[in-house]
Amino acid sequence: MTTEDQTGYHAGIDVGGTKTMFCITGGDGRILLLEQRNTTAHEAPEPFMAWLFSELEQLLAGLQLTLQQLKGIGIGFPGVIGDTEGILTQAPALPWPEEDIRPVIRRHYKGRLHLDNDVNLALLGECWKGAAQGKEHVLMITVGTGIGGAMLLNGRLYKGASFAVGEAGYMVVDAGYARSRFPVSAAAFGPLEAVASGSGITALARVWLAGPAARQDSRLLELAGGIAEAVDARHVLQAAAEGDPAAREIIEQPLEHLAAAIASAAVLLNPQLVVLGGGVAASGEYYVHEIRNRVNRYLPFPVAIGPAKLGNRAGAVGAAAAAAAILW
Amino acid sequence: MTTEDQTGYHAGIDVGGTKTMFCITGGDGRILLLEQRNTTAHEAPEPFMAWLFSELEQLLAGLQLTLQQLKGIGIGFPGVIGDTEGILTQAPALPWPEEDIRPVIRRHYKGRLHLDNDVNLALLGECWKGAAQGKEHVLMITVGTGIGGAMLLNGRLYKGASFAVGEAGYMVVDAGYARSRFPVSAAAFGPLEAVASGSGITALARVWLAGPAARQDSRLLELAGGIAEAVDARHVLQAAAEGDPAAREIIEQPLEHLAAAIASAAVLLNPQLVVLGGGVAASGEYYVHEIRNRVNRYLPFPVAIGPAKLGNRAGAVGAAAAAAAILW
Repeated sequence: MTTEDQTGYHAGIDVGGTKTMFCITGGDGRILLLEQRNTTAHEAPEPFMAWLFSELEQLLAGLQLTLQQLKGIGIGFPGVIGDTEGILTQAPALPWPEEDIRPVIRRHYKGRLHLDNDVNLALLGECWKGAAQGKEHVLMITVGTGIGGAMLLNGRLYKGASFAVGEAGYMVVDAGYARSRFPVSAAAFGPLEAVASGSGITALARVWLAGPAARQDSRLLELAGGIAEAVDARHVLQAAAEGDPAAREIIEQPLEHLAAAIASAAVLLNPQLVVLGGGVAASGEYYVHEIRNRVNRYLPFPVAIGPAKLGNRAGAVGAAAAAAAILW
Repeated sequence: MTTEDQTGYHAGIDVGGTKTMFCITGGDGRILLLEQRNTTAHEAPEPFMAWLFSELEQLLAGLQLTLQQLKGIGIGFPGVIGDTEGILTQAPALPWPEEDIRPVIRRHYKGRLHLDNDVNLALLGECWKGAAQGKEHVLMITVGTGIGGAMLLNGRLYKGASFAVGEAGYMVVDAGYARSRFPVSAAAFGPLEAVASGSGITALARVWLAGPAARQDSRLLELAGGIAEAVDARHVLQAAAEGDPAAREIIEQPLEHLAAAIASAAVLLNPQLVVLGGGVAASGEYYVHEIRNRVNRYLPFPVAIGPAKLGNRAGAVGAAAAAAAILW
């Protein structure tokens, strides 16, 4: 944890395929603004950055600030990106050419810049203002459309050999599957997230609804307004929390797979805390409670597991923290 | 990687339940001596350290050196130990009381002392003089009686929140097993090492030999002198390398489980290199080749996997490196 340059205004931006979150912080580390915008013009870096900085300038103007007054900007992307290379890869939501995007950003802003993966920055946000304040060894696992991960080790983000750390969606908790299925490299999802992500839970629910066990009076169908094609992971989680047997059956494998992955990560990394983030983990106490119990059934010693606190604001807050070099 | 205090003589000691390896290095980092002794008097720290330092002094005397001339000593133990606490735990081979052993060591030696887990020090040894020279991000997995792990991240050993990092034997690659079996906490082995360690392979071989598929003319039995009770992991690995179908069938699950665990660790940690150490991994090119192929079948991007080079000398060499603060 460094303390240099905490003075002055900073911006943190969490870029998503559909929504982008902006955070502006003051010199005392106070959050002055947190606002979300629909992401537009994302087919290439140039128009995207023109849009991004135009939005940022408007938001700054509302605080009587200008871009030039910012001491640093942190930007998180849904993919692999290095602070020293600036080439975004493995970002299906932003399929840009493989080139350094920093010169494009520099046309708009000359101050300190920190580019990072969105999950890394979400972890920083949770460490600064959320569930992991004061911790030095934290594993974050995000369960949403896919599954991601990030880790704070000895008080700093760990980036790996090529900034590709924390690709938890590709963890293997079902040894042997690779012998009987398509190679992983051909799949859009990794083997863990194919089952345990929100997308995986939704897919499992639809298989169940099309199968012989499905009933017209199921709570799942009711939650989705009676339309089988509309059932998704949120309905499964809500029905499971209410005790619905069908939802409990559908959620069993996703829970067990994620618990196995977290147990594996915890014995490898020996964290003080595992933070569960992302939309699925935010569905309520039932999910976190189930994961906590199942992980600790696998482990020889208990590990602390808790929900993220900042929700979809964590990435932008962490990006501002990284820009201010408060934590990274 | 630090470079302070590389001058002078240092000793590295790798303590095992049955064998203890001693390494003495000179001021230029050259290894002056590497010798193994049978471990004796290990029921409590006091007699153990009296034995250890008596052996060390004899070895030093052969080089015309004394304990007082050593600038530092590193000692590795088969369990969890912290350099700042000095309490050895999770060490079935050395079931000492849970108390700080540093005062006991201090009766024999006053200079710089570095205590660590044996796998951590084996990794340092491989980084200094073995398979991982010049690497900054290395995962080591040792497959022997059990399964252990260690990691060099950003050029330094990562210790975790409570020095319990790298307990790879407890990784879970068979999600759901905990619902149908005894709790892990009741088992001496973790779920991965119960299948994939040398002990696991031996147990699987004995089950096969007692089963209906066993044949009197099997290569496995031949390698064990015709005695089913004498068959162990080494015979399975040798027969599998020779193409024996029974051995290939027995080794299938251990290979697949270890590959799944390494794949999971690699996507989490994004290492430059995975070093495979321990007796099973040292059995020959067949094993490492199979693990490498299977890991890369699971992964969306390739990871480099290679065998350790220093064998059972790595821990003592790494302990000397830690004592000299060359790497740790």
